[in-house]
Amino acid sequence: VARRRKQAIPFADVRGHLEPGPIVLITSAHNGRTNIMTLGWHMMLGFEPSLVGTYIWEENRSFDIVKASGECVINVPTLDLADAVIGIGNTHRGRADKFKAFDLTPSPARKVAAPLVEECYANFECKLADGKQINRYSLFIWEVVATHVATAVKNPKTMHYRGRGQFMTAGATIDRSSEFKRDNL
Amino acid sequence: VARRRKQAIPFADVRGHLEPGPIVLITSAHNGRTNIMTLGWHMMLGFEPSLVGTYIWEENRSFDIVKASGECVINVPTLDLADAVIGIGNTHRGRADKFKAFDLTPSPARKVAAPLVEECYANFECKLADGKQINRYSLFIWEVVATHVATAVKNPKTMHYRGRGQFMTAGATIDRSSEFKRDNL
Repeated sequence: VARRRKQAIPFADVRGHLEPGPIVLITSAHNGRTNIMTLGWHMMLGFEPSLVGTYIWEENRSFDIVKASGECVINVPTLDLADAVIGIGNTHRGRADKFKAFDLTPSPARKVAAPLVEECYANFECKLADGKQINRYSLFIWEVVATHVATAVKNPKTMHYRGRGQFMTAGATIDRSSEFKRDNL
Repeated sequence: VARRRKQAIPFADVRGHLEPGPIVLITSAHNGRTNIMTLGWHMMLGFEPSLVGTYIWEENRSFDIVKASGECVINVPTLDLADAVIGIGNTHRGRADKFKAFDLTPSPARKVAAPLVEECYANFECKLADGKQINRYSLFIWEVVATHVATAVKNPKTMHYRGRGQFMTAGATIDRSSEFKRDNL
């Protein structure tokens, strides 16, 4: 899978990549332990600061790493990474190096210890903004503190999980901006 | 827009309709006031009970109705309802009857006062499960208490907001279930 040139984008534009609901890969690191997990349950919770909620089940090995470090990277894969997305989803509590096993390239983040997944077209470095809902709802509320987006990828062919092993893949993008009131764009 | 025959589905299958990240219409009712809003910020938070988080900004007229009633319906529109989705999104704090204005049919829910939007292929009746994050994060945590899904619609052409007036529309669905471990489906 090709690696692409990326750049920072305005924090207020993070929503454009997460609001459509793609499956994402969460990377984490703490005390020399690194992990990747596949995650479909997330939502935007703010523009600036850019806040994102993720549901990370306590049975996932990533849970401990993410909770202890208070950091993660949200990486957005496209359909060309489907084998890795599914394979990582299957590797419950596995101890193998998943970067190596799934031919993914870790690269250093700017503000967190967790690595970026180079092959994903977008990577969002996150620091924990609020952990009070972790115990009750497995809900981590993150602030995006650095962004890396291959802005040349105009309509990324993201994967959207329907359950039962089925993924909806991103279809055509339609532009209805002329019908929006300016404040509502 | 055609109205379709719907049926209840298992609560654990709600995720199949919300996890892909579609734009939804939230209906609400309280003391004779009814409203509809367009919403893109939501996430699954549980299977059984089926929990869903929604971000409803306090500046929306729906905020007061939803908070006072502790109820709503999450309606999932498809691309044939794009005019209504965009028009409702533009009608900030408007007082007109949006059902009439956008040619939508309200129909009675089973367990909540808020109406279903008949033309949406899926409707999920919700009761507030936890309101403790409303003031700080505009985050309502709902339990789905009744479901209505046109199960004949196999791969609904949902709309997924990219920001800036652009919608990704649902593309092809791929079946990778043979590669999943049974427990991970």
